[in-house]
Amino acid sequence: MQRHPGTAGWEAEECPLMSPRMGSVILGVDGGASNTVCVCIPAARPFNDPLPVLSRTVAGCSNQNSVGEDRARETLERVMSQALTKARRRPSNVCAVCLAVAGVNHPLDQQRMLDWLRDIFPSHVKLFVENDAVAALASGTMGKLHGCVLIAGTGTIAYGFTSDGREARAAGAGPVLGDWGSGYGISAQAMTAVVRAYDGRGPETVLTNNILDFLGLASPDELIGWTYEDQSWARIAELLPVVVESAESGDEVANKILHNSVGELASSVKAVVQRLELGGEDGKHPFPLVMVGKVLEANKRWDIGKEVIDCVTKSYPGAYPIHPKVEPAVGAALLAWNAIASELDGDIRTVQ
Amino acid sequence: MQRHPGTAGWEAEECPLMSPRMGSVILGVDGGASNTVCVCIPAARPFNDPLPVLSRTVAGCSNQNSVGEDRARETLERVMSQALTKARRRPSNVCAVCLAVAGVNHPLDQQRMLDWLRDIFPSHVKLFVENDAVAALASGTMGKLHGCVLIAGTGTIAYGFTSDGREARAAGAGPVLGDWGSGYGISAQAMTAVVRAYDGRGPETVLTNNILDFLGLASPDELIGWTYEDQSWARIAELLPVVVESAESGDEVANKILHNSVGELASSVKAVVQRLELGGEDGKHPFPLVMVGKVLEANKRWDIGKEVIDCVTKSYPGAYPIHPKVEPAVGAALLAWNAIASELDGDIRTVQ
Repeated sequence: MQRHPGTAGWEAEECPLMSPRMGSVILGVDGGASNTVCVCIPAARPFNDPLPVLSRTVAGCSNQNSVGEDRARETLERVMSQALTKARRRPSNVCAVCLAVAGVNHPLDQQRMLDWLRDIFPSHVKLFVENDAVAALASGTMGKLHGCVLIAGTGTIAYGFTSDGREARAAGAGPVLGDWGSGYGISAQAMTAVVRAYDGRGPETVLTNNILDFLGLASPDELIGWTYEDQSWARIAELLPVVVESAESGDEVANKILHNSVGELASSVKAVVQRLELGGEDGKHPFPLVMVGKVLEANKRWDIGKEVIDCVTKSYPGAYPIHPKVEPAVGAALLAWNAIASELDGDIRTVQ
Repeated sequence: MQRHPGTAGWEAEECPLMSPRMGSVILGVDGGASNTVCVCIPAARPFNDPLPVLSRTVAGCSNQNSVGEDRARETLERVMSQALTKARRRPSNVCAVCLAVAGVNHPLDQQRMLDWLRDIFPSHVKLFVENDAVAALASGTMGKLHGCVLIAGTGTIAYGFTSDGREARAAGAGPVLGDWGSGYGISAQAMTAVVRAYDGRGPETVLTNNILDFLGLASPDELIGWTYEDQSWARIAELLPVVVESAESGDEVANKILHNSVGELASSVKAVVQRLELGGEDGKHPFPLVMVGKVLEANKRWDIGKEVIDCVTKSYPGAYPIHPKVEPAVGAALLAWNAIASELDGDIRTVQ
């Protein structure tokens, strides 16, 4: 394993060419727009229930579109190194790594990431790079790639697979390219509503007081400076609970933003389901709809996730919602585990 | 005059405490989202027609919200230094400076900029800091602050003054906070439409081929990487002519985006006019409506500026459009000139 400048944790490791079977582990990494989680699970099978997660580490955002390629890689390398150290394993114990990161949108992104991983890990280690949505789907289906996942956290994406390996996605293009259903999108629309009310271009809304209070600002004028001081997507998405509370208190502007978000999220799911014909010819065939992310969690009265499911099942009554019991990083690890198991069984599925 | 590290041009200058009356000049600076223009005009009066602009220099963006405070200041200092050198004047010849920059949204922004200018220029120099919209208004009214200006270039803002000095603004809050009528806003909506069509969430549009051709990209997948590679607002706003051409060719999606932009821009103007009662009690009093920026220029068939005027004059028939003959940087210089002239006449108007 090569060393990465400025990355602590690899230093104590040696680099044998082959990993021993005993103590072999798999690393699963989920890199979302807000943070990056790595889990280390044993490569041995079958699994016990609950899943034996040997270690779990967390770092900041590793979406290269948000923080840049260098910072994204440094974060990924650090979180993997720390997970290994915490699990008392050496890099030579690793038999597979699945990196599931937001911002992997194109085969070239995937290839660049694989090349970089190949420089870090010995040649026998199986490497998989996917969009983080794929790991989120796997977290709901215990590693099986079938159905549709909807992620709505800081960002949003819908991603689906058919049983025979076809795939499709919708949204996930980030804030500039219209991911309005996301936590960022909801928050940006709420801040825009505050500016419009202040300007005289839009109706009065309790969002003004609630957002200014939350941010400790005195006037909507100051909102502009606050916004451009640091445009990290996760920072802006932190306003989500304020928007939900404002809607729950009966504010029409906030309610309209959340209803709009429901429409956007449902439209992403339906676009994927339609393209993959997950509902079969009559639209009624059953398929898993995995729901992930803080936007989809139930609140007091506003349950965006439930509204989205209602909207999707009107068109596709066979969609059965799954709220995963394990986190997406475990989904990433299960994905690698399944791929290796398939190879051992002679049934090779190419995840890369 | 203090030296700024890394800024060429000041070096040869001396720093006498008082400026001589002969050869005195005024610097006017217009700092927009795309570039920064500085003009140097004589302080003597009355003016000849055409205006005797002694020199004109251009640099990159100086909106601190877009490029950061340090880079913005460096650009501003360089562009002023170069204008003086080109006009064969010394800093000691300067009797007033008006800096009109996008991104000055709050009294604190203004004060920080004034403090910084005060460190650079001798104490006798009159300093004025305004939002760039104020200079754009002055460019249409030859320095008189009355009426409303609409700027729609990379960004957009509407800004108005009453004759007795009350002022109001709308929009100008940047892309995160909903400036959808701007060149950036139009371009971002067009790119979003491409992603939505590709996803299956929106109708097919010629914007897909036209934008991909313009950017030299092979597939909408690549648009995401292109977008986040460099999020400078001006770079994204460069897609504007592609959107206008697509609309002129009859594309419904592009037409809808431009009509939406007209609605947004007219709504900004109307909000300012209403708050200042520029149209008087019956809404019919005459007032200048100064139109500035590339979004408002006529194209083959699509004339966004004309559509906005039509929309505004339906509510305020007294609005008379002005397309300035001088540029906003000259407007900034005229603003400083007018303020000094008022002081000399004993009629002090505090622009700061």
